[in-house]
Amino acid sequence: MAELPIVRTIAGLREQVRAWRAGGLSVGFVPTMGALHEGHLALIRQARGLADRTVCSIFVNPTQFAPTEDLDRYPRQEARDAELLATEGCDLLFAPTPAEMYPPGFATRIQVAGPTDGLESDSRPHFFGGVALVVAKLLNQVQADVAVFGEKDYQQLLTVRRMARDLDIPTQIVGGSTVRDAHGLALSSRNAYLNDAELSVARRLNVILKQAGLAALSGAPVGQAEAQAAEALLAAGFDRVDYVALRRAEDLGIFPGDRLGAPARILAAAWLGGTRLIDNMAVE
Amino acid sequence: MAELPIVRTIAGLREQVRAWRAGGLSVGFVPTMGALHEGHLALIRQARGLADRTVCSIFVNPTQFAPTEDLDRYPRQEARDAELLATEGCDLLFAPTPAEMYPPGFATRIQVAGPTDGLESDSRPHFFGGVALVVAKLLNQVQADVAVFGEKDYQQLLTVRRMARDLDIPTQIVGGSTVRDAHGLALSSRNAYLNDAELSVARRLNVILKQAGLAALSGAPVGQAEAQAAEALLAAGFDRVDYVALRRAEDLGIFPGDRLGAPARILAAAWLGGTRLIDNMAVE
Repeated sequence: MAELPIVRTIAGLREQVRAWRAGGLSVGFVPTMGALHEGHLALIRQARGLADRTVCSIFVNPTQFAPTEDLDRYPRQEARDAELLATEGCDLLFAPTPAEMYPPGFATRIQVAGPTDGLESDSRPHFFGGVALVVAKLLNQVQADVAVFGEKDYQQLLTVRRMARDLDIPTQIVGGSTVRDAHGLALSSRNAYLNDAELSVARRLNVILKQAGLAALSGAPVGQAEAQAAEALLAAGFDRVDYVALRRAEDLGIFPGDRLGAPARILAAAWLGGTRLIDNMAVE
Repeated sequence: MAELPIVRTIAGLREQVRAWRAGGLSVGFVPTMGALHEGHLALIRQARGLADRTVCSIFVNPTQFAPTEDLDRYPRQEARDAELLATEGCDLLFAPTPAEMYPPGFATRIQVAGPTDGLESDSRPHFFGGVALVVAKLLNQVQADVAVFGEKDYQQLLTVRRMARDLDIPTQIVGGSTVRDAHGLALSSRNAYLNDAELSVARRLNVILKQAGLAALSGAPVGQAEAQAAEALLAAGFDRVDYVALRRAEDLGIFPGDRLGAPARILAAAWLGGTRLIDNMAVE
């Protein structure tokens, strides 16, 4: 297993990508915030299947964290991440510093309406602006043929796809399936914050969402299925529920008349102590 | 002289650029709103000197016009423009429709702080957001090595340069000198709105700005030089002055202590009837 090359500058990244392109190779890209788990590695494998060379970025992006959020305690473990990426056959790790990404005088912001409305934005109003900005930068830096984003962050995937299309960024945006543990818990870097008791509660999230989806499929009004799922999450031990929402999968639009239409997606965010977990799945 | 190929779709544009790239050719780009005059043609010649192939775009961008502005009456004369471009050796005209640029569901906006503060933004608060958006799109569509923007729109040039750097768009942004008539009037598509009497007044703009710059260079306080220039414009027959400003050339920052520092730029916007004219020049 070859050691994974790491570049920390945009110039270094571009030099490597240019060399690949000159050799006629296509490029796949997986942007991450590090603290890699099996979910990320599945995206790397997916990218490897779509292009000749694969770039992974690790950058804990300050512009998508609010001052009250967990930017400082977000897990950072680059050496371990680099080993995992090498094992998966990733070809290059791009790990820029905040100063490389946001140099003095930085003055540009991006807003995406539509898919960013409600849900995550209700709790984290600056989140998708920060995500759209850093992803636009990363996509322009890497100039990949294809970039893979996890469906775990479903609203983020739709936001990135909309932004990339609107700004004509010439990289195809592809979604990657959520990886779950044996109990169905969606893998997340933030699961590392959970103690054993919280982990048992967290594993109820996917089950309750699945049940709510089935209830709506069986004819329950959308609002009722959502409310019952929120109650079930609190009963299971979650401390607070930000939202449970059954939405149009395509654009997260609300179903008219409180009746499910197809294709649908159920999405939720809930708190366990100081940890906020999200999950979502197709309803079918 | 070969006829100028015109493409109206992003796909068609990319196909041509990809073919050039495959042949090892570099690409220069000049975005315009059409109604081409000698000022634009000088930018085309500059781009031709910087790259192997030159793309010009003509798109009257609705997102940079306020509802009260001259979007509908903005001059459109594509056939004549295409002839001029062919004469100059331009290789491709990209003339997309509004629907190609802003398809249904379009949801993304870009803001650039810093160089966009004040001056044009005081009169046209949505202008630079619209410019940054359409230029980001055009740069990502063309994927040129270099793009040339006229210094006539100096604040716009700084805004585009800042946006392209912040978003890591891999196209070099180059400024092109303002072309003037025999009386020093900066060429502008909007000069076509002026009658003969107004044209005589318009030709005083560059003279008065030059005098104000010389006054500040000779030690006059910046605020005094600006105020005297504004008075001189009204006395010359302008109906209204939006601003006359002596600023740092690099970032349009205000000089501390009302004293000129180098390098400086003087910029102005003033009205003649229903026509708004802008001009600027280095103070040296």
